[in-house]
Parts: sequence; C-alpha cells; structure tokens
Amino acid sequence: MSKGVTKQSEDFAKWYTDVVKQAKLADYGPVKGTMVIRPYGYAIWENFQSSLDQMFKDTGHVNAYFPMFIPEHFLQKEAEHVEGFAPEVAVVTHAGGKELEEALVIRPTSETIIWHMYKKWISSYRDLPLLINQWANVVRWEMRTRLFLRTTEFLWQEGHTAHATAEEAQAETMTMLEVYRRFAEEYMAMPVITGQKTESEKFAGAVSTYSIEAMMRDTKALQAGTSHNLGQNFAKAFEVTFQNKDNKEELVYATSWGVSTRLVGGLIMSHGDDKGLILPPKVAPYQVVIIPIFRNDSKGLVMDKVDALVTDMRKAEIRVHIDDDEKASPGFKFNEWEMRGVPMRVEIGPKDIEKGQAVVVIRHSGAKHFVQLSELVNFLSDQVVIVQEELFQRALDFREENTHTVETWDEFKEVIDTKGGFIKAYWNGSAEVEEKIKTETKATIRCIPFDQPGETGKCIYSGEESSQLVIFAKAY
Amino acid sequence: MSKGVTKQSEDFAKWYTDVVKQAKLADYGPVKGTMVIRPYGYAIWENFQSSLDQMFKDTGHVNAYFPMFIPEHFLQKEAEHVEGFAPEVAVVTHAGGKELEEALVIRPTSETIIWHMYKKWISSYRDLPLLINQWANVVRWEMRTRLFLRTTEFLWQEGHTAHATAEEAQAETMTMLEVYRRFAEEYMAMPVITGQKTESEKFAGAVSTYSIEAMMRDTKALQAGTSHNLGQNFAKAFEVTFQNKDNKEELVYATSWGVSTRLVGGLIMSHGDDKGLILPPKVAPYQVVIIPIFRNDSKGLVMDKVDALVTDMRKAEIRVHIDDDEKASPGFKFNEWEMRGVPMRVEIGPKDIEKGQAVVVIRHSGAKHFVQLSELVNFLSDQVVIVQEELFQRALDFREENTHTVETWDEFKEVIDTKGGFIKAYWNGSAEVEEKIKTETKATIRCIPFDQPGETGKCIYSGEESSQLVIFAKAY
Repeated sequence: MSKGVTKQSEDFAKWYTDVVKQAKLADYGPVKGTMVIRPYGYAIWENFQSSLDQMFKDTGHVNAYFPMFIPEHFLQKEAEHVEGFAPEVAVVTHAGGKELEEALVIRPTSETIIWHMYKKWISSYRDLPLLINQWANVVRWEMRTRLFLRTTEFLWQEGHTAHATAEEAQAETMTMLEVYRRFAEEYMAMPVITGQKTESEKFAGAVSTYSIEAMMRDTKALQAGTSHNLGQNFAKAFEVTFQNKDNKEELVYATSWGVSTRLVGGLIMSHGDDKGLILPPKVAPYQVVIIPIFRNDSKGLVMDKVDALVTDMRKAEIRVHIDDDEKASPGFKFNEWEMRGVPMRVEIGPKDIEKGQAVVVIRHSGAKHFVQLSELVNFLSDQVVIVQEELFQRALDFREENTHTVETWDEFKEVIDTKGGFIKAYWNGSAEVEEKIKTETKATIRCIPFDQPGETGKCIYSGEESSQLVIFAKAY
Repeated sequence: MSKGVTKQSEDFAKWYTDVVKQAKLADYGPVKGTMVIRPYGYAIWENFQSSLDQMFKDTGHVNAYFPMFIPEHFLQKEAEHVEGFAPEVAVVTHAGGKELEEALVIRPTSETIIWHMYKKWISSYRDLPLLINQWANVVRWEMRTRLFLRTTEFLWQEGHTAHATAEEAQAETMTMLEVYRRFAEEYMAMPVITGQKTESEKFAGAVSTYSIEAMMRDTKALQAGTSHNLGQNFAKAFEVTFQNKDNKEELVYATSWGVSTRLVGGLIMSHGDDKGLILPPKVAPYQVVIIPIFRNDSKGLVMDKVDALVTDMRKAEIRVHIDDDEKASPGFKFNEWEMRGVPMRVEIGPKDIEKGQAVVVIRHSGAKHFVQLSELVNFLSDQVVIVQEELFQRALDFREENTHTVETWDEFKEVIDTKGGFIKAYWNGSAEVEEKIKTETKATIRCIPFDQPGETGKCIYSGEESSQLVIFAKAY
C-alpha cells in the first residue's frame, strides 16, 4: 500500500504528512484540527510516557488528575494568563440538556484549577513542597493545525509544583528542564539546546520560562519542552498562602512544566529520511522486524527457526515483530518497514538457515550484516545501543553543520534566506529589536542558551555592545 | 488530622465520603459533580491501569487515542445510542472566540467517532480483527454524583473491536468479560458474578451486554465492568463494510467494553471497615508502611536499620513507605495509616533492634507478629500473597452470607426490606415484571448469571414456570 513518500528536499511539509499518514502514526479526526493517534503512533507516545513518568517519579513527583472543566471566571484571575489563553479556549455552554449558569472552559493548561485546589491543601510549610504531575488532554483552538505539531486537542503531561521559597522553585524549574534535556537526548536521540525564553516568548503568567530547542531536518527549530518558574503569580491570584517556619503567612512559590504529543512530531523530523520514518531503538514500538522468506516447502523450517529466535529476543527484552503475511512479497515488506522506521530488519530464509546465518539491515545507515544465528541476539542487543548513539551523533552533526555564527545584519539576512538553520548572534535584550527581526526575517529568538561564551559582542541589529549570545531560527 | 471516620453501620454513605476525603483519595472539583483524583487515589488507579493494560496487550489489543470532540450529528446515527446518551452530554458551542457552525459533543463514550474512523481503515477481511483500546476521560452530565462512583467527568478505558464474523465478536465479548473478572478477583480481591444484562439494562446500541457485579459491604450491588456485543449496529450506522474471503461486501461486527475510575469506589466499598480503607496488596500504592520509633539519642541507630531494611524490601519489589515525620506521634501514625488502608505496618524502635526483631501489624485482621529482622523481608513477601487471598476470601464469605435464594414474592419483599443483599430468584423474562419489581422494591436485576442451576422454577412475581434464575439487588 506504500506509495513512497515525497522527498524531503522536494517538499518537507509534504514529506512530513506523507510519513505520518503512510506509517499509520496518525490521522485527522472529523472535527477540524483534531487528531486520531493510531496504534503505531500511540505506541511511541506510550514509550515516551513510561520513560518520562519514571523520571518524574525518580525526582520525587506523584501523579494526580484534575477536572478538565474550568469555570470561566478562573481564567480571569491572572491577568497575563487570561490574555494568553482566552482567545484559544473551547467553551461548554450546555450540559445535561440545559444551558449552564456559568460557561465552562476546557483546560488549555491547568494552572488555574490546580491552584484553586492547592489553596485547600496547603496551609503550612509542612505541606510543601507539593510535587504533582498530570497526564491529560488539553484543548487550544488553533487556526493552522498540523498532525502532532499543533492540534486543537493534544495529549501532554503538566507538572505543577508548590514551594516555600523562591530558590526552591527555581531549582525545581531547572531540575525538570534537565529531565527534559535528558529525555530528548538519551531517549529520542534528539540533541537540544537548553536556555531561557525571552520576555515576549515566555509562558503567559510565568516569571521566567526555560525550554529545550531542537533542530529539525529542514533546519527549522522546534520548541520541544518548557519549564516555567511562576513565582508567586498564581498563589497571588488564587490566594494560596502558607505559614512558614517563623509562623508568618507567605505566598507560595510555583513552577509548571510540560511536554506533549508534539514530541512525536519532533522525533519524526529529527531522524527521518527520503524513505520515511527512522526511529531510535529506545522509543521504537518495534526495535526489530523479522521478515521470514520461504516457499510452501520451506515454511515449516523457516518459521520454526524464527519462532525460536523470537523467544530468545524477547528474553533479551528486544521488542520484535514478525511480518509473516503471506500475501505480501519480501520486497514489499522491506520497503514498508523501512518507511515505518523500524531500526533493524532481520531477513531469514532456507539458504540462510543452511549457512547458519541471518541478514541484518540497519535502517538509518543501510548497512548490511551477515550474522551467525548463534550470535544474532547478542548482535541485535548491541545494535540497540549502537544505533541509538549513531542517531544522536548524526542529529548532532546535522545541527552543528547548520548552526551559523554571524556578526553583521547583512550576513544574518543572507544566512536566514539561503541556508536557514540556527543563527548564533548577539542581541541587546530589547523586545523591540526582537520584534523587528521577526517581522523582517520570520526568525525568532529560540532561547538565550545557558552555554554563553563569557564575552560581549555587538547586537546583530542595533550594534550595541551586548552580553547575550542568542539562538535565532525559523520555528515550528 | 484524622478525625476518625463515621461507622459503616451508622451511615454507610457518610463512611464512604469520610474515607475518600480523609484518606486523601479524591476531592470535589469547583464545577459541580467533577472530581479531583488526589495522588493517593490516583496511585491506585495507576496500579489498576498497569495490570489491565498488560492483560489487554496479552489478549492482542493495542492502544490508540481518538478525539474527545464528536460532531453532534454523529450521535444521531444510531437510534438507541442517541436516546441513551443525548440527555447527558456536555456541548461545546464556542471555540477560538467564535460560535461553531456545528456544536461538538464531548464524548460520553466513543463508539460513534471510532466507527467513523474504522470506515476509513477497514476495507477487507485482511484488516480484521481490529483490536483497539483507549485510555481516556469521558463526560456524562449526571444529576446526582458521588466521588469515584458517579462523576460528570471520569477516567476509563474503552475497547472497540471490529470482526469479520458474529461468532468472533461474541468470543471477544466473552474474552474481555473474563479479563475483567480476573482483574476484579485476582487484583482487587473483589469477587464478582458474571452474567448477561437484561434487555432494559443493556448498553444503548448493543445487541447484548454482559457485566461483572460485585457486592459492597452495605450489601448493595456495584456494576463493575461491562462488555458489549454490538452486532452490526454501528457498522450499519456508519456504513462500515468489508470484502470477505468470498469477495462479498459485508457489514463489520463490533464489540466494546469498559471499566472506569468507578472501580476505585468498588475497591473502597469491598474491603473497608470502621477504621477506614483496607487495600489489597496487589493494588495498594504502599504495601508496607514503616513507622520508626525513636528519641533523639536513638534516631541514628533506628534510621540506619530502617534504611537498610527498605533497601532490601525494594529489592524484593515490596512497595514500602517510611513515615519518619518527627512532628507526629507513633500512635497518630498508626491510626493515620490504618485509615489509609496500608495492608501491613512495621514498627521498629531501639528495643526491637536490641532483640533483633520488628513488629508487623496486619491491617485487615489486626494480627500482630514479632518477626526476626533477618526474616522480615521474606515474611512481608509472603504476607503480600496471604493478605491478598484473605481479603478475597473475606469478601466472598460476606457475599455468600448476604445472598438469599427466595421463592415467594412476600419473602422477596421481606428480604429486600430487612436484609438487603443479593436475591436469587426465578424471573419469567418479561420487562414489565422487571419494571414492576423495580418500582415496588427498588431492586433491579443485576444480571442473568452464566452459572445457572439447570432446572426451572417459578417466576418470583408472576408465578410462571421459568428457566432463568437471576440476581436482584439494590445497586449503585
């Protein structure tokens, strides 16, 4: 059924949609902008969830669930928050056959309802810190949608923590950004730059927002996760105070942080090629696909061997799928599973069995290995690690190749127009300059990286001496 | 903070609410009828999820995610379905600052949107069976709500499968009912009766509905899970046909099945006592709570021992929590963790360490054991199994004691009024009789159990000879 995907170089956006549809990752739902996550795509999300959830628990967090219906007036309580979110909410006006007295907003994010509850639960420093995460669906009514990257309803996790001091809240904000960095780099094999968002790009209601930023294979940037220090803004709005150790009432400090199904889009665009999807082994639903090759007279022989190998692979905790559909040819299957991004393919037929070997083909490199059957499980276990590392390195090299340090405004415009990618340049910290650069070039400041050269330079636009080297890019 | 819970015998409904609130399982949200599932309650739900999810996968199912917004006209397509669900839906009329052209219903269940998608995915017998499950939130606008048991938004899983034959669909319906029975009995230690719902109690749109029915400790019944054979009803409504092996177009056969956060309510009411919650070890967030007992001079000694024991327990995969809060007395902690239902408590102080022992108290029996420290981990591992079995047996005995076989209508009324519980009685199969019994006694037919005596008897109401022995009870 695979018609082959559009080439990346031809039309990257179409390549992306082709991959999502043909690899059966997702489909549009009947309501404009909604997404159906199909089993293969959802299995990737489940792998993300299980790794992230463990990392959250290892850092002391627990899960809970808050209602998705938020009374409309809650949103009004934090001035920046309502300005940021009110334009894109979906509103329930009728339920149970009647018009509601107060309309209900479907959560675009849960700060307001969670801080309403935290007021009930927090009274003393002994109730702090409160370290809660929620896995949930949220709704933001977007005009332009794209599968995984921007849909009106999406799945995510949102952490919401409460602390006794500003220092603790800041430390939590950094801890969770580091969790996201580790997850992106070690599980998704997606290198990211960590840093702070500018004032104009920060979360509506935050004191400061930090993010991980990745480069996609079209050299555009993707904001892949954010961690916010909310200061006392939501505690103020919802009157959440606690008695500190000196018996004084004080406003609680807050953080929130989240990643979403958008990460699946990031995964696709970090690694894929003209044949389709490429999945890093740690998050791939299947790490290995076995294509048995047989005719009627050799079926028993081959399948017995395959079954035995599969048993051994599963013992070694390799996620393996056998494609024994007799209605499709081996060649068809090779293409199909390459397009669907399975990291390794094992081909095994009667002649291979005679020689006591199997053929292993690595998806991302095309490398072909003839492996002794007795060594096969060990070989594949090693490749799980090797392929993961190679994909990370490949993505990192790609990012480095497409990152340009520029020093003049003319150079900036030329690079953005001709090469794209990430541009490292000094910025004077002015929102006005940021806005002008955006208007003229469509490039935005992705973040002010933590990793700074430690010397000043000239602002790319104003020429003023500046201490901030920032990353500019066109972004999703 | 524990004020002690109301006695079950005094006011069971109040006991239930006290336990849910004081054990910090859940809280009401700001919108009427919505629920906040707090971390301790959510940890129970997570344990349910992880066991059920594995059972679904072991029976060949995969997870996916469908949008929660359903175009209003979808609901109209299946006549019984709309009649059943239209009165209780919540409706989105505005989004992104504009009135929508067509109002959107928030899923009360997902048959309609899923079968809309199945039409796109199914064309041949080779696409079948399609075995998909979804973990999601759903909304049903209920007038009378109670935490976990009936809330306007709740969490659940809904399986939706598509099959080539009626026989296969029926087999799937039974397989999943059996998964639910096993989960209820082996994980929740909650004995259930499996059987078929009557025509008037079946799911809106099903050909036949099957359920697991449990008895709560007030002897009322709780429907704890349902599995529906949907026949070709939804395939007809959404025009989902497939080409069968003989190249003929045929309508697809369907099933759906679900359990929800209501199960947490069932767990509470299956095992709890006047001291509060009692949790079976397999689903308890903490299987063991350790209460270290020390003064300033013995703190180091005790905590070193406790830390070493905890390390060993975790190696043995025992879920253990240490309550080392120095601001609360041991006595307070004993009450607190009994109320919160932790299956086993370990007390350990300097004198215990001198004797090389610890005190273990079993929550449900109150049994006190002095256990050598060298034997402690093995003892607790054994108790995880023993307590699980004892709780199941205790619940089963309770159900048996409160199940009455009656043969006359006078007896029926007397038993329902004075003893309650489950009543086994013959029924002539008439919906009219069923309705009259319900009106007169508030007892409903919980199910027609699979386990039948194999002989006929007189209908409890009409006196007609009948082959169906059914279970009547007042129900949640």
